[in-house]
Amino acid sequence: RTHQLMSWILFFFVGVVTACVAFFIDFFVKQLMKVKFDYLVKSVNECQEHGCLALSLVYFLCFNCGFVLIATSLTALAPVAAGSGIPEIKCYLNGIKLPGVTDLLTMVAKAVGVLFSVSGGMFVGKEGPMIHSGAIVGAGLTQGQSSNLSWLRTNFLRRFRNDRDKRDFVSGGAAAGVAAAFGAPIGGVLFSLEEGASFWNQSLTWKSLFCSMSSAFILNLLVSGIQLHAWGQLDATGLVNFGKFNSEGSHLWNVVDLAFFLVMGAVGGLLGALFNEMNKRLTIYRMKHVKTRGKRVAEALLVSAVGTCLVFVLAMTMGKRPPKSYLAETRTGTCRSLTAEDLNKEFVKDARGFFCGENEYNDMATLALNPQEVSIKTMFHMDGTFSEKTLFCFFLMYLVIACWTYGVSIPSGLFVPCLVTGAAYGRLVGALLRMWLGDYTATNLGTYALIGAASFLGGVVRMTISLTVILIESTDEITLGLPLMVTLMAAKFMGDLFNEGLYDIHIELKHIPLLGWEPSVVSVSGRHGGF
Amino acid sequence: RTHQLMSWILFFFVGVVTACVAFFIDFFVKQLMKVKFDYLVKSVNECQEHGCLALSLVYFLCFNCGFVLIATSLTALAPVAAGSGIPEIKCYLNGIKLPGVTDLLTMVAKAVGVLFSVSGGMFVGKEGPMIHSGAIVGAGLTQGQSSNLSWLRTNFLRRFRNDRDKRDFVSGGAAAGVAAAFGAPIGGVLFSLEEGASFWNQSLTWKSLFCSMSSAFILNLLVSGIQLHAWGQLDATGLVNFGKFNSEGSHLWNVVDLAFFLVMGAVGGLLGALFNEMNKRLTIYRMKHVKTRGKRVAEALLVSAVGTCLVFVLAMTMGKRPPKSYLAETRTGTCRSLTAEDLNKEFVKDARGFFCGENEYNDMATLALNPQEVSIKTMFHMDGTFSEKTLFCFFLMYLVIACWTYGVSIPSGLFVPCLVTGAAYGRLVGALLRMWLGDYTATNLGTYALIGAASFLGGVVRMTISLTVILIESTDEITLGLPLMVTLMAAKFMGDLFNEGLYDIHIELKHIPLLGWEPSVVSVSGRHGGF
Repeated sequence: RTHQLMSWILFFFVGVVTACVAFFIDFFVKQLMKVKFDYLVKSVNECQEHGCLALSLVYFLCFNCGFVLIATSLTALAPVAAGSGIPEIKCYLNGIKLPGVTDLLTMVAKAVGVLFSVSGGMFVGKEGPMIHSGAIVGAGLTQGQSSNLSWLRTNFLRRFRNDRDKRDFVSGGAAAGVAAAFGAPIGGVLFSLEEGASFWNQSLTWKSLFCSMSSAFILNLLVSGIQLHAWGQLDATGLVNFGKFNSEGSHLWNVVDLAFFLVMGAVGGLLGALFNEMNKRLTIYRMKHVKTRGKRVAEALLVSAVGTCLVFVLAMTMGKRPPKSYLAETRTGTCRSLTAEDLNKEFVKDARGFFCGENEYNDMATLALNPQEVSIKTMFHMDGTFSEKTLFCFFLMYLVIACWTYGVSIPSGLFVPCLVTGAAYGRLVGALLRMWLGDYTATNLGTYALIGAASFLGGVVRMTISLTVILIESTDEITLGLPLMVTLMAAKFMGDLFNEGLYDIHIELKHIPLLGWEPSVVSVSGRHGGF
Repeated sequence: RTHQLMSWILFFFVGVVTACVAFFIDFFVKQLMKVKFDYLVKSVNECQEHGCLALSLVYFLCFNCGFVLIATSLTALAPVAAGSGIPEIKCYLNGIKLPGVTDLLTMVAKAVGVLFSVSGGMFVGKEGPMIHSGAIVGAGLTQGQSSNLSWLRTNFLRRFRNDRDKRDFVSGGAAAGVAAAFGAPIGGVLFSLEEGASFWNQSLTWKSLFCSMSSAFILNLLVSGIQLHAWGQLDATGLVNFGKFNSEGSHLWNVVDLAFFLVMGAVGGLLGALFNEMNKRLTIYRMKHVKTRGKRVAEALLVSAVGTCLVFVLAMTMGKRPPKSYLAETRTGTCRSLTAEDLNKEFVKDARGFFCGENEYNDMATLALNPQEVSIKTMFHMDGTFSEKTLFCFFLMYLVIACWTYGVSIPSGLFVPCLVTGAAYGRLVGALLRMWLGDYTATNLGTYALIGAASFLGGVVRMTISLTVILIESTDEITLGLPLMVTLMAAKFMGDLFNEGLYDIHIELKHIPLLGWEPSVVSVSGRHGGF
C-alpha cells in the first residue's frame, strides 16, 4: 500500500518536473528567437535603404552559428544527447539500456542544447528532446541518486531501485514529455504504450495518464501564468498548438475531400519514405566519414551556415525583392495582401512585411524568417495566400535541409520540421486544387496544410494510434479526427511498402538488437516452409 | 500477404455492418419514441381540460409495458441477450467463451430487444448492446458460417476460422460498436484493449482503429443522410452526442473549479460504489428467487410499470401541477422560463410546456417525459434552471430504478442511465453552489452536469483510460479533457476503496473464472509472508 501511494506521488512529481523542464526550454527559445528576429527585422528594414543587406546576413549568420556552436559543444560533452532521443527511449523501454541514456548530464546537455539548436535556426524541433528529458526525469527523480552526482544519494526511495519500477517511471516520464510538448496527455500515454510496452498494464496505464495529466496541467498553468499573465485561466494547451481551425458555420471538410485526403496521405507516405531513404544513406556516409569530435562540430556549423544563407537568400528573392542598390528605386516581385479576416488573428503581427506596404506581406519571408511554430500556424490559418512557387521552394528546401540535419551532432527533434515540410506540401496541393478546380468546395487551404503535415510526419515516423491521438489533441478539433486518421493510415500503408520508420532505421543503423513486432522474413525458402 | 489484405477488408466490413446495426437500433428507437411521446403529449394536453389524466397514464403504461413485453420475450429466446453484454465480451476477449455469446440469434434478440426496451421507457441504454452486437458481427461475419443457420456455410473464409483471428475480429467489432455508439473511434480501440487485451499488439490496434473508424464514418454518413437529409455533410458525430458546450469567449472552467470537480468526482465514486453494492445484493436475491422464465418476464413488466407510474406521477406533480379537476381553475407549482439563449437551441422543441404558458417549461416533465438523450442534453445545455427539489427527486428516482433495472431479463445498457443519474447529481451540485456562493464564477451549470455524469459513470464502471477518451470524444471539446480526467480519477480511486466495477461484480456473481489484473489477497497470513 505504501509502495502504491508513494509511486502515485512520484508519478505526480515526475509530471511536474517534466513540465518545468519543457517550460524552461520553451521559454528561453521564445526569448532568444524574439531577440534574434527583432534584430534581424530592424537590420533588414534599415539596410533596404542603404543597400547593405549583406550585413544583415552576417548578423543572422553570427547569431545562428554561435547558437549552434553552443549546442554542438554541449552534445560533445554527452554524445547520447544528440538526436531526438526517441530511438533511445524506445530501446530503453524495450529493455535495452544504452550507456548514459538516463544520466543527469545527458538531460542538462539535451535541454540546454536543444534550446540553442532551435533558437539557432536549425531545422529541428524541441519536442523529441522534451520527451527524452521527461524520460530522464522519470528515471532520475525516482531513484534518489545519480551516477553523475555521487554525493546525492538518499535511501528514502530505495524500494523503487529495481528495473521494473524504474522502467515504469521512464514510460510515465516519456508520456509526460509528450503531454508537455503537444498538450496531448492521452497521446502521451499511447506513445509510451506503442513504443514501449509489449504488455498492456492497466495500472501502469492509469498512472502514466495521471503523470502526463499532471505535466500538461502544470505546463498550462506556467504558460498561462508567466507568458499570458493570467494565472488560473489555463488557456495554453500545450507548447505545439495548432490554433483553432475556423469553423464558424462553414464545414471544415466533406466527403469528397476525404478522397483527396486519402491521395494526399499516400503521397505524403511516399515523400516520407524518400526522406527516410535519403537520411539512411546520409547516416551511413556520416558513420563512415564524420567520426571525430572536431568533424562533427564542423558539420553542425556547416549545416547551420548553409541553412541560414539559404533561408535568407530565398526570403530576399522569392517574394517582393529589395532594390538592387540603394540608388535604384524599382523593386520587383509581388506582395500579398492580408485579408480582413487575417487582421483579426493574433499571428498577423508575425507576418513579415519586408519591402511591402501596409497590410501586405512578403510570403517567403513570412514562412522562412519566423520560428517554425509561426510558419506552421501561418500555413494553417492564414486566409491570405502564398504563391505556388514560394511554397514549392520552401517545401523543397525544408525537405533537403531537415533530412541533412537529422543525425548531425546536436539535440534535434524531428516532429516540427516534418510538420513544416508537410504543411508546405499540403498548402501547395490546396492552392493547386483551388487553381484547377475553382472554388468547388468551401474547404479552406488550412485544412489541406494540416492534412499535408500529418501525411508527411506519418510517412516519416510511421507511428500509428499514438500519432493520430497526438495530432487530434494538438488540433483541438475532434471533427478533424476522421480525416487525420484516413491520412495517417494511407501514409503508413504507402510508406511501409518501401522502408521502416526513421526511428527504427536509426536503431538498426546503430546495431542495437531490438526485435520488431513482426518476425522478419529470413529467407525465401523459409517462407515457403523449408522444413 | 493475402491473409493480411483479406483481414483488412474483413475489418472494414465488420465496421460497416456494425454501424448499420447501430443505425437500425437508433433509427427505430427514435421513431417509436416519437410516436409514443407525441401521443402522450397530445393526450395530456387534452386531458388537462377534461381532468382525465389517469387515461393518459393508462396509454403510457400500455405503450411501455407492451414494448417491454416484446423485449423480455425476445430475451427469453436467447438468455445471453439479457444485460449489457459487456461482461460477456470482456470474458470472451480474455479467453472464456460463454455459450451463445456470439450467436446470430443472440444478436437479433439483442438488437431488436434493446430497441423495444429503450423505447419502452426502461431506464436502460442502447450502447452496451450495440457494443455486444459489434462483437457478434466481428465473430460471425468473418467466419462465413453460423451455428444458427447451418445452410449458410462458405469455405471462402476458412483461413480465419481459428481462435486467434476470431478473437481479433471480436475485439475489432467491439471497438466498432463503441465508435458507433459514442462517435468515439479511439475510445473504442482503447475499450477493446483495456477490457480485452493483455498483450499490446501494434498491428491489431491499428486494424481495430481502422475498423472503428469505418464504423464511425458509415454511421455518420447514414445519420446525416437519412435523418438530417444532408448526405456527405457528416454532421452527426456518434449517436450519443453531448452537443457543443457553449464556449463563446467565456471559459468553460478555471483552476478553482478543478477543486470542486475533484470533490464531485470523489462523491460520484461513492455514489457509484453504493449503486454497485445495491445492485450486487439485488442480483444475489434475484439469483435465488427469480429463476423461472415466467418470473423473469413478470419482473421486467413490474419494473416497467413501477418506473412508468413513477415518472408520470412525478412529472405531473413536481413542476407546474394540473388542476385537481376540470372544474377547478387554480394550478399550483411554478413554471420555468426559457432564456433568450435557449430559444436558439435545437433541443428546446423537446422542452415540455405542460400547463405552462408560452416560452415556459415544466422542469420535471422536461426531464422525465423525454428520451434519456434529450434529458441529458437538457441538463448539459439548458440555460434555464431546474428547481433543486426536481433535480433531487429525479436523481433519486433514477438511482433506484436504474439499479433495480440492471439485471432484469431485458437487453439493457448501463452507460446512459448512469449518465442521466450523474447529470442530475452534477446539475444539483451546480445549482446549490450557485445558490450558496452566488455568481462567483462564470462556469455554467452544464459543465457541472457533465462532471457529475462522468463521476457517477466512472464510479459505477471503473473503466480508466478508455472511459476518459470516450467521454472526451463524445463531448467534442478537448478543453474539457483535464477536468474529465481529474473527475474520473477521483471517482475510480474513491470507488475502488469499497468494491469493484459493476461489470466485474457481475462476472464474479456468475462464477466465471476470470482472473483480475492484480492477484487478490488470499489470506492475511499470506500477505504477511506466511512462508
